[in-house]
Amino acid sequence: MDMKKLKFSILSLICFALFPVIASAQFQRGPVIISPEILPNNTVTFKINAPEATSVKLVGNWMANPFAGESMTKDADGIWSITTDPLKQDFYQYSFQVNGVTAIDPSNVKVCRDGSRFTNYFVLPGDQSNLYKVQDVPHGTVSKVWYDSPTLGMKRRMFVYTPAGYEGSNEKYPVLYLLHGMGGDEDAWSSVGAAENIMDNIIAKGLTKPMIVVMPNGNYNQSAAQNILSPKTNFMASYDENAGKFEESLVKDIIPFIDGNYRTYTDSKNRAIAGLSMGGGQATYAGLTNVDKFDYIGSFSGAFVIWPNVRPAPGVNDLNMEAVENIVFPGLDSGVNSKMKLMYLAIGTEDPLIDPQRKFKDWLDEKNIQFENIETPGYAHVWSLWRMNLVEFGSQLFR
Amino acid sequence: MDMKKLKFSILSLICFALFPVIASAQFQRGPVIISPEILPNNTVTFKINAPEATSVKLVGNWMANPFAGESMTKDADGIWSITTDPLKQDFYQYSFQVNGVTAIDPSNVKVCRDGSRFTNYFVLPGDQSNLYKVQDVPHGTVSKVWYDSPTLGMKRRMFVYTPAGYEGSNEKYPVLYLLHGMGGDEDAWSSVGAAENIMDNIIAKGLTKPMIVVMPNGNYNQSAAQNILSPKTNFMASYDENAGKFEESLVKDIIPFIDGNYRTYTDSKNRAIAGLSMGGGQATYAGLTNVDKFDYIGSFSGAFVIWPNVRPAPGVNDLNMEAVENIVFPGLDSGVNSKMKLMYLAIGTEDPLIDPQRKFKDWLDEKNIQFENIETPGYAHVWSLWRMNLVEFGSQLFR
Repeated sequence: MDMKKLKFSILSLICFALFPVIASAQFQRGPVIISPEILPNNTVTFKINAPEATSVKLVGNWMANPFAGESMTKDADGIWSITTDPLKQDFYQYSFQVNGVTAIDPSNVKVCRDGSRFTNYFVLPGDQSNLYKVQDVPHGTVSKVWYDSPTLGMKRRMFVYTPAGYEGSNEKYPVLYLLHGMGGDEDAWSSVGAAENIMDNIIAKGLTKPMIVVMPNGNYNQSAAQNILSPKTNFMASYDENAGKFEESLVKDIIPFIDGNYRTYTDSKNRAIAGLSMGGGQATYAGLTNVDKFDYIGSFSGAFVIWPNVRPAPGVNDLNMEAVENIVFPGLDSGVNSKMKLMYLAIGTEDPLIDPQRKFKDWLDEKNIQFENIETPGYAHVWSLWRMNLVEFGSQLFR
Repeated sequence: MDMKKLKFSILSLICFALFPVIASAQFQRGPVIISPEILPNNTVTFKINAPEATSVKLVGNWMANPFAGESMTKDADGIWSITTDPLKQDFYQYSFQVNGVTAIDPSNVKVCRDGSRFTNYFVLPGDQSNLYKVQDVPHGTVSKVWYDSPTLGMKRRMFVYTPAGYEGSNEKYPVLYLLHGMGGDEDAWSSVGAAENIMDNIIAKGLTKPMIVVMPNGNYNQSAAQNILSPKTNFMASYDENAGKFEESLVKDIIPFIDGNYRTYTDSKNRAIAGLSMGGGQATYAGLTNVDKFDYIGSFSGAFVIWPNVRPAPGVNDLNMEAVENIVFPGLDSGVNSKMKLMYLAIGTEDPLIDPQRKFKDWLDEKNIQFENIETPGYAHVWSLWRMNLVEFGSQLFR
């Protein structure tokens, strides 16, 4: 062993001894690499040290085809890189594909989780996207809270946001129930949705009132996020035949738990429900079948086809409007307008769910049931839109 | 486009529309793979679909050389696999190296974070390791709480565990302050340390009393975990010159915040402090210089070389005992025995920190200062030991 190697070996030992995690991370990484790097013209460079790789791609959610990705270029030192076109402000998710396998960027500690998918993220700053970051404003508290669900027959976990000032006051607060999409869980809004940062920031800016935000697990057969539990649960396989069960448990188990354990206003004008995709379907269903409980309903790219009995055939992305009329919302008419302050139905124009969405909105129009109709041009079924929806919907609550 | 491709394409669109995350995960994955799979003889098989890779290794924390990893074998379908020797019960961390780059196992949703390092994990069950899992017992609440630190000049975040029953009672509780190691942050004990599961389970078994567990961020220049903040902060570069600052903020900022916002017993016999590695050094330093505040001190593989002024030279893994005597603990003598109920000093016999550890213990012996001396054969500087330490130390508290 030559002296250089010996020195490295001793250094490694001490470094490992005193700074084990960092040391091990550094040993894996090799040269210090900055990735992602946001350049002055809002292009972004990504780099990864992978001398043994023969193919490295970048997969980013701003790409036209995020499944295909874009090939990166290897330099003489084995460092692969790519620079994007100019990007607009947003919270972006990405990962690398190294010889066909997804890898987290080892130079970026920012990782978020959406159900079973872990990706890196970065925020390209701007007036809107800065709402998604931790700012120097008073911060609320996010708690992982377990509760009993007799309706679903298990202990279940949810995230509860209490706003800055909740502790140490005796005030009561209104409550927003905020639901994730299919494939996500109770962590999704907090992790990839940046919900606590959004709430901190829009409250600090005076855009909305301090409120409690309850983020339950909307998968009827799941106790808590899969990443802390085993065995793996598959809620897709039998979703349709259990449609409506989670919504039932929300009303019977979760609301009484929250009103019993937090300082809440318990009247309908201080209670809102919203969600994205599956959660948008659940929010609309729970909200419109419990108008005595919610004055505000928000659907962000809502998947209404998850309602009970509405699919013309299993897995089909369409609404049987007879079932909507007779089974899902029997008796619903314009009388509901006086019982609700806001029904916010938002979707991107490129969303594959837009046809059933419009079908439902036409049905509401026929019945003279009021709603705020938001169609955002150019957006598909994406978190970029749902964070904007949360800001917009959240800013209209409890006025 | 042939009909098969067209069908797949339409199916993808609908699947993506209704189940976007799961759909995208499945599209990336190809065939359904079970990994890890624990076999009846406690060997474990790992698999990954990587037809384009030319080298795949498994890196696991049970290996003699976890940096080197072990080569996996590719089958005709491009699926790589490896089976371990029989493993004993534990919480294990691992990842894959695909052509030299670290990749998370796409078949395993269990991922934990220790500072900047994300790894998969699995629990090989047994009497001890079952304490690390969510069991069907009453669960405490873990909250991400922000507080002001005038001492460090910033808003900072910590995790606070309140035991099952805390909500909805008027009882007061004792408090354990639990500190992470270098490279970690306020999330480490909860994520890779399984602290909330350990506390839930040892409380439910009657091994200890219900208590509050406070997990601060021990990096003096960090506001909160790097993965939610930017820019990246490097606390290693200037650690020595700022030694003791975090401990000062713990006593001046954190304890008053906790006692002011939670129902705590505020006397020293109801307050404990413990930590691992750097946190073990911090706990021992804060504890022994504030014996009026803590009756219980726990050091798990404590890095005492992080104390102020004790390194003979920068980065050297040794204790200048004159500095320990005159600067770190001036005037400390056996009078402290009547003021403390337990000083628990634990380390593995294979830990590179064992020499300064023993030097300090010899010094304590010379002064007739009592402590519980735990040296666990065969363990290095590892989480496997620290979880065991938490169970053992936690079970001796507040009796």
